[in-house]
Amino acid sequence: MAVQKSEQSAQSAPAKSAPDATRRSERSRRAIYDAALALVAEAGYPKTTIEGIAARAGVGKQTIYRWWSSKADVLMEAFLDLAEQSTPEAGPVAYTFPDTGDVAADVKAVLRATVDQLRDPRFEVPSRALAAEGVVNEQLGRELVAKLMQPSLDLYIGRLRAAQDAGQVRADIDPRIALEFFISPLAQRWLQRTGPISYEYTDTLVDYALHGLAPR
Amino acid sequence: MAVQKSEQSAQSAPAKSAPDATRRSERSRRAIYDAALALVAEAGYPKTTIEGIAARAGVGKQTIYRWWSSKADVLMEAFLDLAEQSTPEAGPVAYTFPDTGDVAADVKAVLRATVDQLRDPRFEVPSRALAAEGVVNEQLGRELVAKLMQPSLDLYIGRLRAAQDAGQVRADIDPRIALEFFISPLAQRWLQRTGPISYEYTDTLVDYALHGLAPR
Repeated sequence: MAVQKSEQSAQSAPAKSAPDATRRSERSRRAIYDAALALVAEAGYPKTTIEGIAARAGVGKQTIYRWWSSKADVLMEAFLDLAEQSTPEAGPVAYTFPDTGDVAADVKAVLRATVDQLRDPRFEVPSRALAAEGVVNEQLGRELVAKLMQPSLDLYIGRLRAAQDAGQVRADIDPRIALEFFISPLAQRWLQRTGPISYEYTDTLVDYALHGLAPR
Repeated sequence: MAVQKSEQSAQSAPAKSAPDATRRSERSRRAIYDAALALVAEAGYPKTTIEGIAARAGVGKQTIYRWWSSKADVLMEAFLDLAEQSTPEAGPVAYTFPDTGDVAADVKAVLRATVDQLRDPRFEVPSRALAAEGVVNEQLGRELVAKLMQPSLDLYIGRLRAAQDAGQVRADIDPRIALEFFISPLAQRWLQRTGPISYEYTDTLVDYALHGLAPR
């Protein structure tokens, strides 16, 4: 659910031909991201166009096509960039999952950060527009999973495998399924508005998931 | 996630003034449901109109307004009706959750039925259109939860409370949160296409949720 920064956001950065060109390119890139997120938030995904993004960013259409092949690409890069801005302390390379040796504490910390992100209004409206389109547009939906969600899922899988090695999670558990107890309830409450989200709620999910609903 | 039949679908049935009128009304009602589901599947929620539904169903607009106040109401009743058709053995009144005394077996059975429903093409396309609109349209989203999802959630809560009374679920568990381990992962895989859905998958969710991820 939470958009995760990854090295992909660096891949599409303008080539560094010269310091001045780099600064100009960086300004254009940021203007394009801001325009893309604002447009999708206001008009929805189907009515957002490369032309509209270019006009709002004050750049030529060809500037966008030089760096991205479609509006879906621009929007996904814009989200990766937004996620990176929202946790700048993590730096420009791929985010890593905390490993203090206490899997409950580590998953709770990551989920609290996800709650903060889901409540950030800069993030919420454009995210909803993109997620809604992904529900009805299978190709976009699959791109969103591959580019925006999979890096997060992989980090959960890695952390759960470490917990299995440490004896904190049973060895016969499939981490790809187990991680859904942490992310899916929160995703559904946010996407479908089935309930409020809070730190207390996500902490509870972690405790219930690790210890189970049945008496021990 | 799964659309749940409830007594609401009976409330809006045409008044039984006379047998012939009832049959005509029933035919109109069914034609309106079919038209509403087909239109939302083809055109999406924003472009579906009462006028369009009336034209496609071969009835006057006023026939629709006599029974429903908005396109959202028509669509929600159409879904309740579709869910009822897909499990006709449950009869016209509210569906109940099985209670064989084995909470794992009962939840697995309900989830398998939900998997069948999510894979039914009659259900999938219009459901996606309505769910996508609910993501960006808060008022509709809240109506979908209240009218289509809450009856299901209440049945899960009731079954989990019975399991608490029987000592199969810990007394300190909040059933409203616990039920999300059963429905949210499946909902996310279906809505966001984050993974395949199968009976084996939902059976695994139930086992992991009840027994927990941590060693016992």
